[in-house]
Amino acid sequence: MPQQGTSDPSRPVLAVSMGDPLGIGPEVVAKAINQWGGRQSVRLHVYGQPEPLRAAAARAAIPLPPFQVTTPGRIDPAAEIVVVADPAWPVLSRTTPSDDRAAGEISYQSVLAAISACKLPADAAGAAMAICTAPISKKAWFLAGHGRYPGHTELLDEHFRDASTPEEDRAVMFFLGPRLKLVLVTVHVPLARVPVLLTREAIVHATRLGVVACQRLGTSRPRVAVCGLNPHAGEQGLLGTEDETVIVPAVEDLRSRGIDARGPLSADSVFLDAVKPAARGGGKFDLFVAMYHDQGLIPVKLLDRDESVNVTLGLAAAGREIVRTSPAHGTAFDIAGRNSADPSSMIAAMDAAVRLVGVTPQTHLS
Amino acid sequence: MPQQGTSDPSRPVLAVSMGDPLGIGPEVVAKAINQWGGRQSVRLHVYGQPEPLRAAAARAAIPLPPFQVTTPGRIDPAAEIVVVADPAWPVLSRTTPSDDRAAGEISYQSVLAAISACKLPADAAGAAMAICTAPISKKAWFLAGHGRYPGHTELLDEHFRDASTPEEDRAVMFFLGPRLKLVLVTVHVPLARVPVLLTREAIVHATRLGVVACQRLGTSRPRVAVCGLNPHAGEQGLLGTEDETVIVPAVEDLRSRGIDARGPLSADSVFLDAVKPAARGGGKFDLFVAMYHDQGLIPVKLLDRDESVNVTLGLAAAGREIVRTSPAHGTAFDIAGRNSADPSSMIAAMDAAVRLVGVTPQTHLS
Repeated sequence: MPQQGTSDPSRPVLAVSMGDPLGIGPEVVAKAINQWGGRQSVRLHVYGQPEPLRAAAARAAIPLPPFQVTTPGRIDPAAEIVVVADPAWPVLSRTTPSDDRAAGEISYQSVLAAISACKLPADAAGAAMAICTAPISKKAWFLAGHGRYPGHTELLDEHFRDASTPEEDRAVMFFLGPRLKLVLVTVHVPLARVPVLLTREAIVHATRLGVVACQRLGTSRPRVAVCGLNPHAGEQGLLGTEDETVIVPAVEDLRSRGIDARGPLSADSVFLDAVKPAARGGGKFDLFVAMYHDQGLIPVKLLDRDESVNVTLGLAAAGREIVRTSPAHGTAFDIAGRNSADPSSMIAAMDAAVRLVGVTPQTHLS
Repeated sequence: MPQQGTSDPSRPVLAVSMGDPLGIGPEVVAKAINQWGGRQSVRLHVYGQPEPLRAAAARAAIPLPPFQVTTPGRIDPAAEIVVVADPAWPVLSRTTPSDDRAAGEISYQSVLAAISACKLPADAAGAAMAICTAPISKKAWFLAGHGRYPGHTELLDEHFRDASTPEEDRAVMFFLGPRLKLVLVTVHVPLARVPVLLTREAIVHATRLGVVACQRLGTSRPRVAVCGLNPHAGEQGLLGTEDETVIVPAVEDLRSRGIDARGPLSADSVFLDAVKPAARGGGKFDLFVAMYHDQGLIPVKLLDRDESVNVTLGLAAAGREIVRTSPAHGTAFDIAGRNSADPSSMIAAMDAAVRLVGVTPQTHLS
């Protein structure tokens, strides 16, 4: 039976899902836990089986701090670090890094268990405020019968909203890197759907969430660049109308709310701001708003490579906001099991989750 | 009356349009001519008024090699460098760098005159094989009544095709930079039109022109990366169908023609190939094919900044192929007239035109 916790709200729980057990997830999580000492403003609940974690630590010859191993319903609220595994999850029949049905089921179930922890009442044992997801294999999810999710984001979105959630309150992808902070207005949709889905409300919603994230990261009044949709931001209507009819009103709406937003700006040149020195006209923006996946992800990957952290904003459950982050890399089966994975992106993702945890629930939706 | 030329076909004419006379065009052209000595595999015909050119050279305190000044109909085929101006063009009433009606008319007319030179029979005096266009101001063109052209490309396209030109033979934009060679399948169209305009024929046409350009630049069998249209190249149809129904057949078509093409590849990560060292999996591609403007221009500008040369491929007139190039920068009114413009992009554009001039007319269309 679940234990009732007495958790201190100033020390929220970060739930970490270990990702595909045959990928580099267990290794980067082990290395992150090994360096966790200085980041104890949160407690850590790692969802996944302990064996791959211990094996990775042994291969890396690194000590792990003391942790408890338990099941989702029996988490000790006094523990600093807990590894949470359900005995009902499958047992891995192999260790070769590859797309595997059992590994897909384990990684899927461990994300689900971490999600469930976020849905618990805030005072329940195991209730999490943030979730950091190590990489899963979509193909392994497919093999395990969970192929309908293009990624973590959609799974989380499905679980953290209900029929009453308005469309404009949906989850938003935010990227946090050393050079670029960027939010996407549309994400995993066909390009042909982007002009249809692009609304003033969606742009305002995504931008406001990005602004709150920047504020939590220390920029009190972020300067926001809103990308155009069409070439040259539509060239005054010559190359498409949405920049004038949708994005201009969205920027006006944002400015009327006191947000220092500018746009629509030509997407082909606006990202130079992030790389030019201030003396050459760069450094004018703290946050970029991209209208669609590749418009945002091309600059994110070119400028921040593997150093960018993927953040899902706008999730809420049990009356509180839930922050979700993940590292920029994938399962990296090609180097898994060889102690050659760099944990810096995973560490950055866990740090970002800690920094982004909302102080007041739902403040960004007010 | 026009003189009949005796031009040596091994020394074709490069026509250079000087661009907006109030922008940095005359200055970068003057600096390029000053360094022209080693590039005399072509003769140089500069279209524009000589006064801004001489003024820029004087401000820069650089000598210009000897050149003749003449009108479009009276070009001496024996001259190495000719500056071509029509007395009917307006006289500038000011020199302050800004959008000006007369300057717009001059720059528009000088591009038109250079275009006309490309349309002359190959053995006529003044007949040009390639055109390099210094930057114009679209706003000045608008003030002069030529606002219907979003840029040089469309003007050139209009003049170098007639009603009989099939749609799939239209002009194609190619970018040539130190890190990236890239061709666009669609260019100045609303994003919503891209999925509609994207055809197998258009992808094959653009890619083949890009391949020929790479071959002229010295890569005999370029390895081609064809971008996907949708996020993650459509994720096997989950995020849009065009990657499967249009791009896959286009890549098969290209491969059946002996072109080493791969794709559709996720556009958000494929450009990392151009920046990663070979030891880390980069350097696998010589040419990138982008489906639309921002998908190509975001990486071009982030990776090659102002060092990329804009090339128009697929133009033809008077039975021969016409190469067009232009520098990456604009009129730069903010620094014009102050001898602080860097001519390297203009020089690169002129060099590219010389290197890309086709040996055999229309080879790429065979």
